[in-house]
Amino acid sequence: MAQTSTPEEPARTRPNPRRRSERARKAILTAAGELLGEVGYNRLTMEAIAARAKVGKQTIYRWWPAKSAVVLDVFAELTGGSAGEPLPDTGDLPADLRTVMHGIVDELADPLMDRINRAVIAEMQADPELAEHLTRTLLRPNLDAFGERLRAARDAGQIDPGLDPAITVELLLAPIQNRWMMRTGALSHAYVDTLIDTVMRALRPRD
Amino acid sequence: MAQTSTPEEPARTRPNPRRRSERARKAILTAAGELLGEVGYNRLTMEAIAARAKVGKQTIYRWWPAKSAVVLDVFAELTGGSAGEPLPDTGDLPADLRTVMHGIVDELADPLMDRINRAVIAEMQADPELAEHLTRTLLRPNLDAFGERLRAARDAGQIDPGLDPAITVELLLAPIQNRWMMRTGALSHAYVDTLIDTVMRALRPRD
Repeated sequence: MAQTSTPEEPARTRPNPRRRSERARKAILTAAGELLGEVGYNRLTMEAIAARAKVGKQTIYRWWPAKSAVVLDVFAELTGGSAGEPLPDTGDLPADLRTVMHGIVDELADPLMDRINRAVIAEMQADPELAEHLTRTLLRPNLDAFGERLRAARDAGQIDPGLDPAITVELLLAPIQNRWMMRTGALSHAYVDTLIDTVMRALRPRD
Repeated sequence: MAQTSTPEEPARTRPNPRRRSERARKAILTAAGELLGEVGYNRLTMEAIAARAKVGKQTIYRWWPAKSAVVLDVFAELTGGSAGEPLPDTGDLPADLRTVMHGIVDELADPLMDRINRAVIAEMQADPELAEHLTRTLLRPNLDAFGERLRAARDAGQIDPGLDPAITVELLLAPIQNRWMMRTGALSHAYVDTLIDTVMRALRPRD
């Protein structure tokens, strides 16, 4: 939601419909994101999004059939850019995991991201096709990025080659997601560090 | 949903309103559970529950304000009885974990439980008070039961006393819940066994 000033584009003699459309689309997603953060998913309405974005309600319905679809695009806009981004590889696996996983808990602690994530998770439970789509486009690339970093560590002899790769990724990420989702404990950096240390006990090759 | 035959209660000369109420309540919960399994949460209606339970819709609304409340009671009925049940303790921690965790994945594989669990999780995301209530009454007792069993293993010198108790429970349960919820992999008994073996590597005392 950070706004940066951009240089004025060259003046045009007539409005460009595609640019105007794109501007309206962005205004709608920004408005939806702000409102979601302010009032939550249940009290979010298409009317309020339209008013905040200064567009007609019919403009929203031209692109999205329901508020759930708008929220999914807000989610994709906020998280899609970084999906599947490779993890840092300094050669120190626990340190690299700390860097990335501190970022994950910081993001979950953001009130807007918290609300969007919860709305998306609720929608995914009701809609297996949507769940499949989000898993393929957003979740799986992130799991694969962790898998890649762990493979590099395995090749460097730092983790046991006999371990199940999917389970090693789950041991790192599932406790965080579970704790956040069920609200069963604090998601501090200290928690993340202890989690990583505990999982590393399982991952290290046996002497 | 298991039905057991019970001895006839003594005949009464007039109907007992409390017994009749209880019978209606049970019929409504049974009907709601069956319909949820058949059509899913989104297509579940109060009308259909009333028709299946052979009660008036107003009878349902006397006890529950909305279908989400009915489904929560179906959930509590199906799972509440076993909440916080102690884990077996044969002295063999991995074997005891396998027994209990096979049961968990079998339950998640049941289509009705799958639908109910997903509906409840979706509701919990939208309603923090409900989430708090379910966590306190159902989830926390189950986490505590695992914590107890791990404490016994620690006292028997089988797991490292320096580990964070909450994290050790999360390492066992969060991967299963996460995999089920995000549909990112199969929940077989073999998966559970590998998960337990991997976590046990982290838990065992260092020589």
